[in-house]
Amino acid sequence: MTQLAPRRIQYKQDSSLALHSSSANDESNLKARAGTISTPHGEIQTPIFMPVGTVGTVKGVLPRDLKEMGAQIILGNTYHLWIRPGTDVLNEVGGLRKWMAWDGPLLTDSGGFQVFSLSKIRKIKEEGVEFRSHLDGSKLFMSPEKSIEIQEAIASTIMMVLDICPALPAEKPQLQEAIDVSTRWAERCLKVRDPKAGALFGIVQGGLDRELRLQHMRTLSTMTAKDRNDVEHEFDGLALGGFSVGEKPSEMYPVLQDIVHHMPADKPRYLMGVGTPRDLLEGVSSGIDMFDCVLPSRNARNATLYTSNGTVRIRNLRYQKDTSPLDPKCSCYTCQNFSKSYLRHLHQCNELLAAVLSTIHNLAFFLQLMRDSRKAILENRFAAFRNECLEHWRLGEEVLKL
Amino acid sequence: MTQLAPRRIQYKQDSSLALHSSSANDESNLKARAGTISTPHGEIQTPIFMPVGTVGTVKGVLPRDLKEMGAQIILGNTYHLWIRPGTDVLNEVGGLRKWMAWDGPLLTDSGGFQVFSLSKIRKIKEEGVEFRSHLDGSKLFMSPEKSIEIQEAIASTIMMVLDICPALPAEKPQLQEAIDVSTRWAERCLKVRDPKAGALFGIVQGGLDRELRLQHMRTLSTMTAKDRNDVEHEFDGLALGGFSVGEKPSEMYPVLQDIVHHMPADKPRYLMGVGTPRDLLEGVSSGIDMFDCVLPSRNARNATLYTSNGTVRIRNLRYQKDTSPLDPKCSCYTCQNFSKSYLRHLHQCNELLAAVLSTIHNLAFFLQLMRDSRKAILENRFAAFRNECLEHWRLGEEVLKL
Repeated sequence: MTQLAPRRIQYKQDSSLALHSSSANDESNLKARAGTISTPHGEIQTPIFMPVGTVGTVKGVLPRDLKEMGAQIILGNTYHLWIRPGTDVLNEVGGLRKWMAWDGPLLTDSGGFQVFSLSKIRKIKEEGVEFRSHLDGSKLFMSPEKSIEIQEAIASTIMMVLDICPALPAEKPQLQEAIDVSTRWAERCLKVRDPKAGALFGIVQGGLDRELRLQHMRTLSTMTAKDRNDVEHEFDGLALGGFSVGEKPSEMYPVLQDIVHHMPADKPRYLMGVGTPRDLLEGVSSGIDMFDCVLPSRNARNATLYTSNGTVRIRNLRYQKDTSPLDPKCSCYTCQNFSKSYLRHLHQCNELLAAVLSTIHNLAFFLQLMRDSRKAILENRFAAFRNECLEHWRLGEEVLKL
Repeated sequence: MTQLAPRRIQYKQDSSLALHSSSANDESNLKARAGTISTPHGEIQTPIFMPVGTVGTVKGVLPRDLKEMGAQIILGNTYHLWIRPGTDVLNEVGGLRKWMAWDGPLLTDSGGFQVFSLSKIRKIKEEGVEFRSHLDGSKLFMSPEKSIEIQEAIASTIMMVLDICPALPAEKPQLQEAIDVSTRWAERCLKVRDPKAGALFGIVQGGLDRELRLQHMRTLSTMTAKDRNDVEHEFDGLALGGFSVGEKPSEMYPVLQDIVHHMPADKPRYLMGVGTPRDLLEGVSSGIDMFDCVLPSRNARNATLYTSNGTVRIRNLRYQKDTSPLDPKCSCYTCQNFSKSYLRHLHQCNELLAAVLSTIHNLAFFLQLMRDSRKAILENRFAAFRNECLEHWRLGEEVLKL
C-alpha cells in the first residue's frame, strides 16, 4: 500500500476559528487567521511579510539588521541565482543560507516569473521554456526539473513549482491553457524533488476567474506524486500566483475574499508578489498567511517611505529642517536614530546610507504591520485594526498609493 | 596681564620615551608614541586612523558599525557640508554629530583641500579664495573666517585652519608663499574662533623642504591670538598638510622622520590625508598620532580589499568558490560571517552590500592596524611589529600598492 510522506513543514492555526464565525462582533465576516509554520530552519509566525533578497542579498541590509527588524523568512530569486553565481558555485558553498549568513527559513520562487517578465524573447514548450538571459542574451532553457535542481542547489526551506503566469487582462482560454501546462509542470516538480530537500508549494493560477481558480486549487490540493521508493508526496503549501500582474487592486480583493478560504486550512497560504500595505491587510482579511514584494525595498531606494501616517516622499523640500523621526511610532534603527532632515540629505546626496536606512525602515514597517495584524487577529479585533490603519493612511499628509 | 586659555583637548603620552631613547634594542631609533587625547566628546587612544565621512556619512557604514569596529573619531568635510546641506540646516539640526547619530569625537578639515582639488577655476586673494561649486558652478568665496563659521555650525570636536596646499613637486618660492598666506590665515582662524567652540589645529606646510617645514612648525607652535576678553589662545594640536599630493611615498618618509619629532610633544600630531597601511606604519614610526584617508573606503567600493596577507582584488575569478574568510586574522563582521566567494559575488552583481561589507572590513583593518601598533609601542616592540607587517604584505599573494 502506498504511504503518504509527512510534510516537510507544518502549519498550525493559532487563532480561534470559532470566535470568528460565531460572534456577532466586527470579526464575524473575516477570514483572517494567525498561525505558526514549523520548518527545519525555524518557526514562522503568520501572517508574515518576506523581504526579497533577489541575488542572494536583501539589497543594502545586513542579515543581523534583518533579524533585528523581526524578519522571520526571506526570499531568493531562482532565476537570478541561476544566472549568477550558478548552481556549481551554490553547490560548492553549501547553499544560499550558509553563503549569505542567513540562518532562518528561506523561500525561493521557481524562476518562472522572471523568465516571463525579464525575457522578451521566449518559447513555451511542453518540456519547458526557451529564453534568453537578460544579462548577456545567451540561450537558456528552464524546465520544471531544472527549476527544482536550481532550488535544491540553493538549498531553500520552501521551493515553488515552475508555472506559467499570464499577464492580466487575459481571456479564459489563455488562462485555462496556462493552468493546464502549470498543472503538468507542478506534477513533474513534485515527482522530481529529492524527498530530503526543502518543502514544495503548488501555485494556483486562473487570473480573476473564480471558477478557474477554484478548479486549479482543487487539482493541486489533491495532487500527489510517488518518489523512487513508492512513497507518495503532496504539496506542503499552496500559493496564489498571477496577481499584481496588470489588474487593479480593487479587482483582486473580492476574488481573494471568495477563493482564499477554500484553500486547504491545514497548509500555509501564500499570495505571491503582493503588495502594498493595503494589499497586505486585504490579503490577511481573506485568510492569506504569507506575502512577498519588492515594493518596500525598491521604494526605499527611490526615497518613497511608508509610515503610519501615509507615504513620505523624503526628497521633498518640506523635510529639509524637519528634525522629527520619519515615523514616531516606529521602533526601527532608522527612526530611533535619525531625522527626516538627515534622511532627505542622504537621498539628495545619493549616499549609500540613503538606501540602507530607508530599506531598513520600509521593511521594518511591513514586518510591524504583519505583527500588529497577527496580534489583532489573536485579540479578535482585526477588522477594527484594518479600518484604523486605512483611515490613518488616508488622513496622512501624503496618501499611500493603492 | 594676558592669560593663556586652557586647551580644548588634552594630549597625554602613554608610552615611555625613556625606554625608546635609552635601551639598545630595536626601538632605539624609533620615535613612535602611544597617547590619549581627551576631548569633550570622548577619549581617543593614539595612534589612530579616522574614517572619512565626507558629506555627513561614512559611505555605507552605520554609526553602530563604526563603534563595533572600534572607530574612536571620524572626519567630516567642511567644503562638502557647506554645499550640502549648508550652515542654516546644520545650525537648525544642532550640528553634524547629533544629525548623523555619531556621539564620539568629530574632526573637520577646513575645506581648503577640496577648494584646491575639486575646483578648476579659483582665485587666491589675501582675503580668501574665490572658486566655483563642483556641483552647480555657482560662485563661492571661502575665507578663514568662513571656514571657522561653517565648522562651528558643524559643531566639530576638532576644527582645522584654512590653508593653502600646493601640489608637489613645487619650487621653494611657491612653497614659501603658501606658508606665508597660510600663516596669516591661521592667525585669523585662531582669532575669530568662538572660545567655547571646538578645538583648533594649525596646519604646517612646506612640501618636502625640511627647512621650510621646521620654520612653519615653529611659527605655528608659538602662535597665539587674543579673543574679545583679552584671553590668549594657542593651537590645540598641529597637523602636517601638503603630503600625498603628488610626491612618492619614499620621498615623504625621510622628511617625516626628520621633522615630526620636532612638533610639540604635548599636543596631538596629525598627518592629513595619509595614507596606505605602509604610510601609516611609517608615520607612526616618525611620531604621528592621527591619520585620515579615503583610501580604505574608496578602495572597498572598487573591490580592493586589505588583508594581513596583502591586498585582495576580490573580483578575481580565483575567489569564485573560495569559502574561506577574506582575512582569517580579522574579527570584523564581514570576516566573521562571509566568504571571499560571497564577497566576489556581491561585487560581480554590483550589490549595495558589496560596498557595505567591503568598507566595514577595510576600515576595520586600518583601525586594527593602529590598535596593534599602539600595543606594540606600549610593549616596546614597534619596530619588530612594523617589519613583520611589511614582510607579510610583501609575501602575500598580491602585494600592497605602496
